[in-house]
Amino acid sequence: MPHLSRYLPILSWGRTYGRSQFSGDMLAAIIVTIMLIPQSLAYALLAGLPPEAGIYASIVPIMLYAVLGTSNALAVGPVAVVSLMTAAAVGEVAAQGTAGYAVAALTLAFLSGSMLLGMGLLRLGFIANFLSHPVIAGFITASGLLIAASQLKHILGIDAGGHTLPEIAESLIHGISQTNPITLAIGVAATAFLFWVRKGLKRALLKLGTPARLADIAQKAGPVAAVAATTLAAWAMGLNDRGVSIVGSVPQCLPPFTMPSFAPDLIATLFVPALLISIIGFVESISVAETLAAKKRQRIDPDQELIGLGAANIGAAFSGGYPVTGGFARSVVNFDAGAETPAAGAFTALGLAFAAVALTPLIYFLPTATLAATIVVAVLSLVDLSILRTTWKYSRTDFAAVLATILLTLGLGVEAGVSAGVLLSVALHLYKTSRPHVAEVGLVPGTQHFRNIHRHSVETDPTVVTLRIDESLYFVNARFLESLVRDRLSHDRDIRNVVLMCSAVNEIDFSALETLEALNEWLTEIGVGLHLSEVKGPVMDRLDRVNFVDHLNGRVFLSQYDAWRALTQDKGAEAAE
Amino acid sequence: MPHLSRYLPILSWGRTYGRSQFSGDMLAAIIVTIMLIPQSLAYALLAGLPPEAGIYASIVPIMLYAVLGTSNALAVGPVAVVSLMTAAAVGEVAAQGTAGYAVAALTLAFLSGSMLLGMGLLRLGFIANFLSHPVIAGFITASGLLIAASQLKHILGIDAGGHTLPEIAESLIHGISQTNPITLAIGVAATAFLFWVRKGLKRALLKLGTPARLADIAQKAGPVAAVAATTLAAWAMGLNDRGVSIVGSVPQCLPPFTMPSFAPDLIATLFVPALLISIIGFVESISVAETLAAKKRQRIDPDQELIGLGAANIGAAFSGGYPVTGGFARSVVNFDAGAETPAAGAFTALGLAFAAVALTPLIYFLPTATLAATIVVAVLSLVDLSILRTTWKYSRTDFAAVLATILLTLGLGVEAGVSAGVLLSVALHLYKTSRPHVAEVGLVPGTQHFRNIHRHSVETDPTVVTLRIDESLYFVNARFLESLVRDRLSHDRDIRNVVLMCSAVNEIDFSALETLEALNEWLTEIGVGLHLSEVKGPVMDRLDRVNFVDHLNGRVFLSQYDAWRALTQDKGAEAAE
Repeated sequence: MPHLSRYLPILSWGRTYGRSQFSGDMLAAIIVTIMLIPQSLAYALLAGLPPEAGIYASIVPIMLYAVLGTSNALAVGPVAVVSLMTAAAVGEVAAQGTAGYAVAALTLAFLSGSMLLGMGLLRLGFIANFLSHPVIAGFITASGLLIAASQLKHILGIDAGGHTLPEIAESLIHGISQTNPITLAIGVAATAFLFWVRKGLKRALLKLGTPARLADIAQKAGPVAAVAATTLAAWAMGLNDRGVSIVGSVPQCLPPFTMPSFAPDLIATLFVPALLISIIGFVESISVAETLAAKKRQRIDPDQELIGLGAANIGAAFSGGYPVTGGFARSVVNFDAGAETPAAGAFTALGLAFAAVALTPLIYFLPTATLAATIVVAVLSLVDLSILRTTWKYSRTDFAAVLATILLTLGLGVEAGVSAGVLLSVALHLYKTSRPHVAEVGLVPGTQHFRNIHRHSVETDPTVVTLRIDESLYFVNARFLESLVRDRLSHDRDIRNVVLMCSAVNEIDFSALETLEALNEWLTEIGVGLHLSEVKGPVMDRLDRVNFVDHLNGRVFLSQYDAWRALTQDKGAEAAE
Repeated sequence: MPHLSRYLPILSWGRTYGRSQFSGDMLAAIIVTIMLIPQSLAYALLAGLPPEAGIYASIVPIMLYAVLGTSNALAVGPVAVVSLMTAAAVGEVAAQGTAGYAVAALTLAFLSGSMLLGMGLLRLGFIANFLSHPVIAGFITASGLLIAASQLKHILGIDAGGHTLPEIAESLIHGISQTNPITLAIGVAATAFLFWVRKGLKRALLKLGTPARLADIAQKAGPVAAVAATTLAAWAMGLNDRGVSIVGSVPQCLPPFTMPSFAPDLIATLFVPALLISIIGFVESISVAETLAAKKRQRIDPDQELIGLGAANIGAAFSGGYPVTGGFARSVVNFDAGAETPAAGAFTALGLAFAAVALTPLIYFLPTATLAATIVVAVLSLVDLSILRTTWKYSRTDFAAVLATILLTLGLGVEAGVSAGVLLSVALHLYKTSRPHVAEVGLVPGTQHFRNIHRHSVETDPTVVTLRIDESLYFVNARFLESLVRDRLSHDRDIRNVVLMCSAVNEIDFSALETLEALNEWLTEIGVGLHLSEVKGPVMDRLDRVNFVDHLNGRVFLSQYDAWRALTQDKGAEAAE
């Protein structure tokens, strides 16, 4: 049943699943589980939810993605940017720590899951393309900065809030005098340690002769070591009695069955945030999945990915989680550790379920500052300001899109930032194509080629103007072309024929068709011929549907050279009359 | 001072103004004034304002446009669509007949004027291009239907309201039992008479041997005749005592000095409507102005037009008017009647000022139903449903844009309709370009030309794939190209070289650059060469700024034939090794 296995990819890979895949998947699952335990707790903190929500969000969603997803390496769960967006969206409707906050997070996951599923069933995967790379890069960088800033309160041990950089800064300055020195010491030490693990540990171990594989695992276990050491210290020294915030009691159970809210008001408020989370989550996930699949010349199916991620989010909504997506770091770890099939994800889910049942009492004394340190170190790797320099060099419009997205995200928050980025990318694109490059061309002597008269020494004829249009003609630039021709003719009254050379015109939409008709009508009135040359097949097919050529006062030439010969001969003939 | 005359076009044409221009302008002004008196009263009624507002909106604005505008024939004043939009916007913030309503209309004019002026100074005239022809056509047609429907209440003599077709219909059905038979008789008679004047009068007069010029003037004076006849009838028979609604007393004075409101709340509420009115008004005006200028091979300057229209609207705000723009019908009449310079507009303004001072007592008994008939007959000429058939034939996406704009305008009102139309046009354009036409090409034997392998019998090589991309590469389609190449290669493992033929690629934006780099990296990993051919000059310049060619694992070929020769020779060389 090829049709069913398209929608249930597990039926394809499950049939041939064997021992070699199992051992690869199992090893990958163990490494990813070790990495995910502290990360899940930390991202829940970032989202403003109790720590167990992060663990729960990694169990049922991974299982569902394993059944429905098409990537062999993608690891689904809470990720930094989506956690931040969750905090921003849910913070608008409820206060952190209230039951309403948790329900709103479930509702957000449900909405986002339904949207992703719906887009998948309608095969709307292309929507992700409306985010340009500069907007994504700017958004991720700004989000990383915002997330790091938002964690400083946990490292200082103070109460603070805010969803934009100015708000966070103001709130931190306001509370900095309440800094708890022990919390600060733990936070700074954990941050420094984790940076060293990330940048220096592996090299140090390799120098000491540790096998590369082991050094790799040691690096991934760094956060676990930080968690263990600071938890032990907090327990041994009773730091919670000295004002150090700790995780506290976490329910010791499998993910509970939960219900999102279906209140119309809440759904209306969360609709746009859910849409933005869906698109951002999908873009992050698909980029990772495609990159990893390509390394093995495998393919993933974007529309089926939407279905897999949609199901994962709906699963999160009914099992005490919050919005999830495919994470970059964990997926790369999963891939590198040898994951062969989505079963690796299912094994990770089992590992996390075990942790939820057996290990949660162990983290009672885990300082919140340690989790904050984990987040800070993880997200600073997202920050990449070099994109500003690169885009500046390549194209000012792309630079403008990056800069605006960064500034608006930092200044107005994640939702405003990414929305403005998308609108700006589209507007800049329209602006660029609204004034297309148009070259007036002439014949290169002795050839059949035509080149820009301002760049090359070419043959021209005072009665013939040939304009090569380097852009599709559509509503945004239709008027521009009309103005251009009218300007050119109002300056030069010897012109008898205008040729539009259409070799780079990939489309003529209805607006441009009407402009051409208006131009044709006007040129007929003033006794000038309008001709087209080198019109592409699909464009010509469309023009033929409305019998454009019958109205045209001139002709459509297959090649520009034909046009040139015919129009300069015409002139010869006229002169002879 | 060429610079000053650019911003004050009156300095150019004023210097050479003489007797011949004066006589042309004067005659045109007389005809346009006769036409504008009933029209101005009627459009004020449509906008929900007292009749004198329509006259006032035609005096100061025309004067200002005459000084600042660049079109010799454009007649500025209240127009049907903008009046309807004014009623919709102002109706949201105040009840008709209140002082707040009039102030809101002044504020709308002030905001719209400031926006137009601002866009002109920033040279943002291109913004008008974001409205595609199908959206404009759909919007104008739907507005015409809405306006005609909204006037039925005056013809029936009942109270009714509503800004959408369902609202208006419901309101009419609700009130139809209160129909005043005398009002209905006047309304139907006036409508029938005006239709006949428009369609049959001129032919009838010509048959009777009337000179064409006189027949023309008679046709234009039709509404004045209807106004005079019904006013006389109402006066003679005391119809106002029998329930016929009449215009009543109109202040007998020059335009008063008025102040718009600067209340932040009101400005915030009217901001988006003012923007839509500005853009719709500008598009209507510039289309008329360009069409008329072209007939005499004259040019108009869109950015200076924005300044002229902006000043006209600001003038309206301070002289008891409401938003104005260049109207189609009156401008054509002005042009046909021989207007030579913007002075014709100034003379029209003088004519209307005379009317405001001297003629207003004469219209005391004018039945509202007559004005409604004037509007109905005028706007039904805007309704053109043939656009649906034409776009259906030419392109389904353009058809979708027209249909959606018509339905949304009728169903949700003018603002929702035109906003949705713009968004839809842009989204459909992005969707179309997100899946560009890409042809796999091969060599036409015995030539240097390359054609689609699926359409022509061409030479191919199992180790070389050449893809001709018929679209600019930018963020919306960057991922598509990547997927396409990956799909093609995952199906065929003999391929050693991929050539992207870029003859129709007019731009490569930063997103597409990153995609090409990712593709290059991946192809390098799997040992496949990536090459470009026929890259356009401006595109290559940009790629050189980031040294793209240094990273490329293959080469950039000037022509596709060079690429073909080199890559098939490479193969020969390799085979020989």
